[in-house]
Amino acid sequence: MPRIVGKEYKDLLKRYITSQNEENLYFGQQFSREFIEKEISPEEVISIHKNALVDVFPDVPDKVLHSFDFLIEMMIHYGLALREHQSLIRKQE
Amino acid sequence: MPRIVGKEYKDLLKRYITSQNEENLYFGQQFSREFIEKEISPEEVISIHKNALVDVFPDVPDKVLHSFDFLIEMMIHYGLALREHQSLIRKQE
Repeated sequence: MPRIVGKEYKDLLKRYITSQNEENLYFGQQFSREFIEKEISPEEVISIHKNALVDVFPDVPDKVLHSFDFLIEMMIHYGLALREHQSLIRKQE
Repeated sequence: MPRIVGKEYKDLLKRYITSQNEENLYFGQQFSREFIEKEISPEEVISIHKNALVDVFPDVPDKVLHSFDFLIEMMIHYGLALREHQSLIRKQE
């Protein structure tokens, strides 16, 4: 995963946390298309989010951070299903 | 989404946050298979996680909660890709 993606994610997240406006949410949704094109898995998204949150908000409680580790595990099967989808699409092309 | 899923998720998350052991992470990973079978989207998982976290840990800072709204938006396209996958599989059956 290119480092630049994590930096961009952090900037967008920071902007959203500061102002919570719809426009920034929309940017996030558009940005996620790029993530999917780059085959960044959903569990990687959670990991990028966790790291960005710690950067933006260094006092984030440990319990919250542990909760992200649980969420990453939850996403692993979603990631597998998605990779299966990407390989099916490739076969059909 | 059945209410029971949110309750079970909360119990598992609580157990993991308390002890952070591998076994509880493994339960989470197994539980996620059930989520996929029930066609619970990845954005719904984030929403279930956010609600469970607030229940387990009522003092969770507002900034963290806002960050989850951003993460939910990020997951929407992942959810769409996955639903496309599920419909492709159905067509092949």
